[in-house]
Amino acid sequence: MNKKGILTVISGFSGVGKGTIVKKLLSDYEQYALSISATTRAPRAGEQEGREYFFKTREEFESMISDHAFIEYAQFVNNYYGTPKAYVEEKMAEGKDVILEIEIQGAMKIKAQFPDALTLFIVPPSPDVLKERLTGRGTEPEDVIASRLQRAVEEAKGMDQYEYLVVNDDLDTCVKEVHSIIQSEHFKSSRNIEFRENLAQGMKKFLKGDK
Amino acid sequence: MNKKGILTVISGFSGVGKGTIVKKLLSDYEQYALSISATTRAPRAGEQEGREYFFKTREEFESMISDHAFIEYAQFVNNYYGTPKAYVEEKMAEGKDVILEIEIQGAMKIKAQFPDALTLFIVPPSPDVLKERLTGRGTEPEDVIASRLQRAVEEAKGMDQYEYLVVNDDLDTCVKEVHSIIQSEHFKSSRNIEFRENLAQGMKKFLKGDK
Repeated sequence: MNKKGILTVISGFSGVGKGTIVKKLLSDYEQYALSISATTRAPRAGEQEGREYFFKTREEFESMISDHAFIEYAQFVNNYYGTPKAYVEEKMAEGKDVILEIEIQGAMKIKAQFPDALTLFIVPPSPDVLKERLTGRGTEPEDVIASRLQRAVEEAKGMDQYEYLVVNDDLDTCVKEVHSIIQSEHFKSSRNIEFRENLAQGMKKFLKGDK
Repeated sequence: MNKKGILTVISGFSGVGKGTIVKKLLSDYEQYALSISATTRAPRAGEQEGREYFFKTREEFESMISDHAFIEYAQFVNNYYGTPKAYVEEKMAEGKDVILEIEIQGAMKIKAQFPDALTLFIVPPSPDVLKERLTGRGTEPEDVIASRLQRAVEEAKGMDQYEYLVVNDDLDTCVKEVHSIIQSEHFKSSRNIEFRENLAQGMKKFLKGDK
């Protein structure tokens, strides 16, 4: 059957544990490759070229834009962030399922360019749990907390754009469920048109030989 | 999230091992219930009411037809065969994923009535393997073999109506894959609209309390 990797977009509420889920998915299974973004912002202490980001100058980034080298890109606070197309396509061709952890606007741009992309949204078990995670220990300034909660409410509006919702209650369970959803996707009939046609074609020979 | 069972239609080529797969799925996992057909044909030796079939008189069956008590029914060689609706709906309400092993015409009737039904088609690893299974040890009359092969070619035409294709090469692997596909389906966003709306609704309270 289909050996091509699946481009998988993982989004979810801030504070829901997306990063931890993705990290565990990549360490638990060999099937995955993480898409690494390019950015023009300066590396922070401990960040490594090609691990956290591909670090680019503004000129390099803009020349990649004109070369259509990004699946999607955006500008935040004077810096560019983008998803280089070449890396994603190379890994998919190798048969790796490529994981893209990205917020909703970026996710929708990707879905527009790769209609076959699989989209997952990670949710908390309940609003209260999310609130607790966003509020933290209550040691942070009120306005920081308020803006986090405001952002979560905004993020909720995008949920229905995703094909699958996965609850992050227990990390191990959640990672297994995400893995199972992505692997099941390989069996979609629409991803195995060639296999299906070869099978039907091969079976037509049944009639000639036996009549 | 959604606790309602999923109606799962399993079809596939004759001789591909559907029956064995379904039997193992039901014995390996508690999550499933098998839909049992009703028929007007006489029980054969060893068949048990409510296990192989619900045995009905012609009058009983026809009165069920007028009561719209079947999801689908058909007549073969003077006997009726049908899928009673009540049993399927009861099991789904209990949270069981209901398995319906049925040929393509029946499957399409079910999909028309239950658009949410999940459809799987079991395929052989290759045309040659199927041919081998259908030809058997070569001890059967040529015309029996020929009509089996003819039927397989007909069945192939329906493959593209199914959402998932699963190869039955190794039985254990195949059953695990079928299980994983059905369980992943529970996370479909479209099957969790209530959960999604409750979450979004609950989060709106974030704003009032903290501003």
